[in-house]
Amino acid sequence: MDIREAQRIIREKYYERDSSRGLFSTFTWFVEEVGELAEALLRSDYRGLSEEIADVFAWLLSIANLVNIDLDEAFRRKYVET
Amino acid sequence: MDIREAQRIIREKYYERDSSRGLFSTFTWFVEEVGELAEALLRSDYRGLSEEIADVFAWLLSIANLVNIDLDEAFRRKYVET
Repeated sequence: MDIREAQRIIREKYYERDSSRGLFSTFTWFVEEVGELAEALLRSDYRGLSEEIADVFAWLLSIANLVNIDLDEAFRRKYVET
Repeated sequence: MDIREAQRIIREKYYERDSSRGLFSTFTWFVEEVGELAEALLRSDYRGLSEEIADVFAWLLSIANLVNIDLDEAFRRKYVET
């Protein structure tokens, strides 16, 4: 799947909620998911890890949507074109 | 760009370093980048934000590589197929 397609899916599903929740509250949810990822890593819980990595990615896309950043472009600029 | 292609790029560039650094140290670097993202958000620094979001994504891919998780598949399972 394209990064842009993933970002679009998250926008369609969650932008309205993300937007009314606000940027800092959305960032706080993102950090909460980072905590869950930490827990899954500490437990070597493979199934949990897969889910938590997906969740952290999804919340990162929510943040990107709120600040109008195209993750695909940002990633290319930093890790491909340099 | 495909999520898998991005994960492959990060694997090729960083897997060796990530692997010898180890999982928890890599996770700690990831959290350090989350902190930089927080700082860019607080400063409303658009250019910084773009770079920090890319960095958080890249370090998340490093973690996914270390635990052998295909982010594309994990994301589909959690956010597309359900």
